[in-house]
Amino acid sequence: MAPFALAPYLEATRVRVEALLQPRLSTLFGRAPEALLEAMRYSVLGGGKRLRPTLCLSFADAVSRASGGGGEAADDAACAVEWVHAYSLIHDDLPAMDDDDLRRGRPTSHKVFGEAMAILAGDALLTEAFALLTREATPLRASLCAELAGAAGAAGMVGGQVLDIAADRPADRAHLERMHGLKTGALIRASCRMGALAAGARESELRLADAYGRAVGLAFQIADDVLDVTASREAMGKPTRADAARGRPTFPAVLGLEASRAMAREQAELAAAAIRPLEPEPGPLAMLARYAAERDR
Amino acid sequence: MAPFALAPYLEATRVRVEALLQPRLSTLFGRAPEALLEAMRYSVLGGGKRLRPTLCLSFADAVSRASGGGGEAADDAACAVEWVHAYSLIHDDLPAMDDDDLRRGRPTSHKVFGEAMAILAGDALLTEAFALLTREATPLRASLCAELAGAAGAAGMVGGQVLDIAADRPADRAHLERMHGLKTGALIRASCRMGALAAGARESELRLADAYGRAVGLAFQIADDVLDVTASREAMGKPTRADAARGRPTFPAVLGLEASRAMAREQAELAAAAIRPLEPEPGPLAMLARYAAERDR
Repeated sequence: MAPFALAPYLEATRVRVEALLQPRLSTLFGRAPEALLEAMRYSVLGGGKRLRPTLCLSFADAVSRASGGGGEAADDAACAVEWVHAYSLIHDDLPAMDDDDLRRGRPTSHKVFGEAMAILAGDALLTEAFALLTREATPLRASLCAELAGAAGAAGMVGGQVLDIAADRPADRAHLERMHGLKTGALIRASCRMGALAAGARESELRLADAYGRAVGLAFQIADDVLDVTASREAMGKPTRADAARGRPTFPAVLGLEASRAMAREQAELAAAAIRPLEPEPGPLAMLARYAAERDR
Repeated sequence: MAPFALAPYLEATRVRVEALLQPRLSTLFGRAPEALLEAMRYSVLGGGKRLRPTLCLSFADAVSRASGGGGEAADDAACAVEWVHAYSLIHDDLPAMDDDDLRRGRPTSHKVFGEAMAILAGDALLTEAFALLTREATPLRASLCAELAGAAGAAGMVGGQVLDIAADRPADRAHLERMHGLKTGALIRASCRMGALAAGARESELRLADAYGRAVGLAFQIADDVLDVTASREAMGKPTRADAARGRPTFPAVLGLEASRAMAREQAELAAAAIRPLEPEPGPLAMLARYAAERDR
């Protein structure tokens, strides 16, 4: 068997995700104000790596080989995590938060639509993610909703953002891991878990998804911090050196650049090891873990 | 039988709602940053009429007399609609939106905690409402979640807020009814429907809840516009004449004061009539409809 090639897999999955996102936003046409839908589309359909939906679908595929199909629930879950991710970027970029003007090479939402509409577009994407997940009244749909709400809420992503903007944040590794574990890690972990759940994962498989998602989330965030130091604004599509400019603690600042890179690789190895029972030969999940740690943008 | 007395009922239900809200917020202690929880508590436990949870519980009680108990699902639904209401007030009050300094006689969230924390407290309350609704993985919980997300999202409350802040809003009755139908009406209707659903309502009972909720929502909003013209800042706990100052169309401005009062009463009558199959003698639901139209604060 030829070794698994990540690049074509990432591209094929990206195309698959785009094809899922578009019609799901379209169901709101005619029922919601056009100006709001335009702002929602701008952020959801404006590119991005689609890491979270890719993890979600990859887990659904990996689990369903054993137990029989992620289907529409997995597709909805993939879109819901991406909507929640898009909402979090819109709100994080607001003048009252990070006050960023550029995201993915384009002006941020509030620069294009104004602050009020940006807040509301974020609110709507968050809310519609839960509407999408519960468009069927089944126990599975309620579980998916609970996973997403837990990961995105006060003890997850929002809580992490609060820690990140706190004036008295300590600059040590424990704080960084806790903050990022909530701010980025929780949603990445939930993306893995939701894909597995949608495909009918057993409890043991859910535990694998959890361990994998935790390690990948950390690897991804360390890589993000490293890229903020080493990459160009052009490659990233947003300002770099932004963390240092804000006096924000980062892994390279706390551990040094080489130790940070080593830690990202170590987490990717952990993730790949965790997933071996589900993916005995290195496949999408092992490669995605490596990609999270070693990506160049 | 003595005629039903609304004031003690409202007070008893308010106490019941406060007792439900407190422990449900407390489950986040230790798992979410304390500063965030403080901002969430400030807005949720800071008083208010508790109209939405009162409607939710009253419907659950009315339906369960026939079919057997709203129970914990109704209690969770009542809290979830109030959390979503609290989030919407926090975000509506933001400088980028209505820029209000006073709410329920106290400084608004962003005045106390800063804009970033206010945005995040709103985001967290919205998200935790869905977490609360889906803390059991049942079809009923998924339905409650779908109701709330539909009412709060792009084709509901957020959409209504977009229409309300649009620069080109027309000042006529059709626009007012559409805008308020989304901005206030959708969540009030959902409060009624969710209470009914939680108590196991039949389809016919859900339709009653829907018709009642629609009329009560409109009556409530007309009364709000009337109070903005006629009441004092002290009675309302927030600035009055605010709509006119913002050039915002209102029912009194479009229809005149007396015609607006008549229309609110008419909607209350419609609601009371809709509910008669469920409540043959005038009880909580009929009285709540009248209260929504004729309240003095």
